[in-house]
Amino acid sequence: MKTNSQKYKWYKIVFEHDTKAGRLFDEILLGLILMSVAVVMLDSIQQINNSFGRLLLTLEWTFTILFTIEYLIRIFLTPRKSKYIFSFYGIIDFLSIIPTYLSLIFAGTQFLIIIRVIRLLRVFRILRLVRFTMASVYLIHALKHSREKIIVFLGTVLLIVTIMGALMYIVEGPESGFDSIPRSIYWAIVTITTVGYGDISPVTVTGQFIASLLMITGYAIIAVPTGIITAEMSREKAKNQGTRVCLKCSNTDIDTDADFCKKCGAKINQGKQ
Amino acid sequence: MKTNSQKYKWYKIVFEHDTKAGRLFDEILLGLILMSVAVVMLDSIQQINNSFGRLLLTLEWTFTILFTIEYLIRIFLTPRKSKYIFSFYGIIDFLSIIPTYLSLIFAGTQFLIIIRVIRLLRVFRILRLVRFTMASVYLIHALKHSREKIIVFLGTVLLIVTIMGALMYIVEGPESGFDSIPRSIYWAIVTITTVGYGDISPVTVTGQFIASLLMITGYAIIAVPTGIITAEMSREKAKNQGTRVCLKCSNTDIDTDADFCKKCGAKINQGKQ
Amino acid sequence: MKTNSQKYKWYKIVFEHDTKAGRLFDEILLGLILMSVAVVMLDSIQQINNSFGRLLLTLEWTFTILFTIEYLIRIFLTPRKSKYIFSFYGIIDFLSIIPTYLSLIFAGTQFLIIIRVIRLLRVFRILRLVRFTMASVYLIHALKHSREKIIVFLGTVLLIVTIMGALMYIVEGPESGFDSIPRSIYWAIVTITTVGYGDISPVTVTGQFIASLLMITGYAIIAVPTGIITAEMSREKAKNQGTRVCLKCSNTDIDTDADFCKKCGAKINQGKQ
Amino acid sequence: MKTNSQKYKWYKIVFEHDTKAGRLFDEILLGLILMSVAVVMLDSIQQINNSFGRLLLTLEWTFTILFTIEYLIRIFLTPRKSKYIFSFYGIIDFLSIIPTYLSLIFAGTQFLIIIRVIRLLRVFRILRLVRFTMASVYLIHALKHSREKIIVFLGTVLLIVTIMGALMYIVEGPESGFDSIPRSIYWAIVTITTVGYGDISPVTVTGQFIASLLMITGYAIIAVPTGIITAEMSREKAKNQGTRVCLKCSNTDIDTDADFCKKCGAKINQGKQ
Repeated sequence: MKTNSQKYKWYKIVFEHDTKAGRLFDEILLGLILMSVAVVMLDSIQQINNSFGRLLLTLEWTFTILFTIEYLIRIFLTPRKSKYIFSFYGIIDFLSIIPTYLSLIFAGTQFLIIIRVIRLLRVFRILRLVRFTMASVYLIHALKHSREKIIVFLGTVLLIVTIMGALMYIVEGPESGFDSIPRSIYWAIVTITTVGYGDISPVTVTGQFIASLLMITGYAIIAVPTGIITAEMSREKAKNQGTRVCLKCSNTDIDTDADFCKKCGAKINQGKQ
Repeated sequence: MKTNSQKYKWYKIVFEHDTKAGRLFDEILLGLILMSVAVVMLDSIQQINNSFGRLLLTLEWTFTILFTIEYLIRIFLTPRKSKYIFSFYGIIDFLSIIPTYLSLIFAGTQFLIIIRVIRLLRVFRILRLVRFTMASVYLIHALKHSREKIIVFLGTVLLIVTIMGALMYIVEGPESGFDSIPRSIYWAIVTITTVGYGDISPVTVTGQFIASLLMITGYAIIAVPTGIITAEMSREKAKNQGTRVCLKCSNTDIDTDADFCKKCGAKINQGKQ
Repeated sequence: MKTNSQKYKWYKIVFEHDTKAGRLFDEILLGLILMSVAVVMLDSIQQINNSFGRLLLTLEWTFTILFTIEYLIRIFLTPRKSKYIFSFYGIIDFLSIIPTYLSLIFAGTQFLIIIRVIRLLRVFRILRLVRFTMASVYLIHALKHSREKIIVFLGTVLLIVTIMGALMYIVEGPESGFDSIPRSIYWAIVTITTVGYGDISPVTVTGQFIASLLMITGYAIIAVPTGIITAEMSREKAKNQGTRVCLKCSNTDIDTDADFCKKCGAKINQGKQ
Repeated sequence: MKTNSQKYKWYKIVFEHDTKAGRLFDEILLGLILMSVAVVMLDSIQQINNSFGRLLLTLEWTFTILFTIEYLIRIFLTPRKSKYIFSFYGIIDFLSIIPTYLSLIFAGTQFLIIIRVIRLLRVFRILRLVRFTMASVYLIHALKHSREKIIVFLGTVLLIVTIMGALMYIVEGPESGFDSIPRSIYWAIVTITTVGYGDISPVTVTGQFIASLLMITGYAIIAVPTGIITAEMSREKAKNQGTRVCLKCSNTDIDTDADFCKKCGAKINQGKQ
């Protein structure tokens, strides 16, 4: 694909974000996605569905057709078609338009509602736009570097809730809502994370004592992931002063004289933190 | 306005905080605001309203007249009148006195209660006094520098609650209270923030499993804003040792030999952290 | 008082903690206090009170007499009697023995329960023992240095809950439990601190939207006190490496060649962090 | 035991984790443990027990026999048999197989459920596998070094909930669920940890005011353990760059030229953080 061709210009507008037109395209698309999600939401409210059902259906079809056109344009413009189609966003783009068409063939409200909601995954596109700001690159890096510790932490939490859940199943029994080990584990998660719905809560003295231990555990160990992330971020902050980041693949290993990313070949602009 | 005139002396007392008389004026005003808010609060309690309604009405009118006098004095003293009137605090000062006068013209208790509460915004004045301590300048700076990362974080949280809310709407359905996507999103926010009212809570096994995932997500990602703010504060602390801050506009870019702020022209005193 | 006299030896045992005998005395006393609190607790449970009421009453009188003896010994041993009697722990020591004697004169269960509980303040003595470990000195220092920022933070939280509470009183009204501004503020505190009892919860769409905002606010700003304390602790940690602390008055301004505290004259041992 | 013997090879597979075969053995065992726990969980759900009770019983016996074989192999292979049998995991291994055999002799479902759940402790084996990653060594170290401060913190929290619980017992009384001091303390723990079930919640104005104070306390002091852990982790991170850790006993005091651990004699590989 020649870099001066008309197709390349459009490719840059639709797929990239560093030109004025490309940014405008993204903003309009983001607006349309948000509006289409709003329509799905409003449609789920019974009173609104009863009054404005017809209008919402029309809007839904309008958005579906617009997104279909966008999807076809993306396939037409991209040089390596199969790569786009089977990429994460390619699949979401496809899944977000297919339910409305399917609703023509298959009747039955229950099924329709399910496929309609898949379209909500379109919101992930917002994430795609957001991903390219330095701030999110920075956050994702801190999370990535702490991955191992976070897994160890979550594993320990899962172990605690499993044992405590099983224990409470024995201690409290089905009368207070602890009617199976999985449900007791659900209760333990509700408690250790300090959510505390109160749909299931201990009534015996022993149960309330064990619950108290679990609560204090949850209250104290929240410090652990916070400590992990904070230590990582402080380090990242100290290290990353003035480094450059590839906005395409998030690679931070960029030589000071580099103009293109070593890993994906994207042009590199001086990043601002 | 001459700096030696009587009017300028009063201007300093009413609008500024660096003289003894000015501080006294602020403290008296703060006391009056707190008392007037207390009257509004007590008035909202049915039993107290029944017994002391007359006394509270008298007090309300007393405060309204005092604040009206204060408002008129401020307009009289300030050299650029329109600037004060249309400033944030000018508008609040006006809105805080108008409801009581309006209650003379428009009857109907429900309506009165609504306008009375606007007066509570007067409490923001407390913030104005507080704003000038170094501690709050320090906190606001840390928040400002982390703004981008906090927006990315909140965006991600909103995305998660939208998708999870929609998913739970499908999984649980109207029987367990998930009767529309917006209401399910409300539930997801209640859950991810670990508030957990329990007014809506999942009853199916699948619903409880998804809820558990959401709780653990909420429990783990609370570490992210904490990490952001902490890293920023540690950096701020290291950097700000011995720097000076303009108490008028919070500008911290002040040369060591400066006597006046570069941005707003206010006199600068050596700030103590 | 001569430092070699018998009385001084006993004074050191009863009031100080740096001898073996003194530590043993404190440990026995701590054990007695915990047991007496346990008796008060068990006595409050209706079933236990019915079955073991007599035994618990005997134990209560035993503890009261032991603590009375301890109180009289303390008065006898201390050189400046009035200083001890009117000190914080002197008053608590007195208040913790008086209710049982008063119960002989004044009958009426309700009144008795109230005065019994005052005795629980004796638990603060545990704090007195704990206070002398380096760990708590370190924690108290970090809290003291962050005092101003914590006040600003709490002030902002109070302002938010007042305004949000008043707003919810208007929006939701008495039907959903928001029947006065103070109660609505109570709800706002339950929500912003992520406690979420669910005794009062919004039912209207507007109310649930405002509640969502308040929850996310609470979820995000928890980062602020954490950031304050963490930054302070990191700094404290870096600074305090190898410093010495007076175990009597918590003074940390101790010269490297000092053997006694400048402020209270207590002997200084090399503190270990 | 000769290091080239067949028995030693098997010993390394069963007890150690640094060979390919040893890791495979651990992974298969972990899989079996998780499946056996899943069987216990499913068995506790009434509907599943009714339909698949026979299948679950067969699976339970299969797992029990497999774990019995594993236990006997471990005893056979280990050179110091009594050391293994009375070690923490040796006891758990034994306890995890005995309940199923006991169920043949002793009938009565209630008793059976209790002993079945002990088997869940087998999940701790997962921890044993995880323990050998650097990430958990790092976390455990940070927790160990902060032990004292965490104890002081938890002690203060316990003191606060005891006094507040007793206070609420007086203020609210049995009508609102505060029917004994231990139950009021349970409520105080539910509140200070921000769990907030709502099974017990204050109804009087005084009670709600005290509860508000407790909530704000809980909300603010969560910063303390977080600060402790974070400060420790930041320090640990700075210090531990490039240090080596014994994967057997977690000892970090290893000389740069050491090939074996000073404390347990295990071979040391260069650890990667």
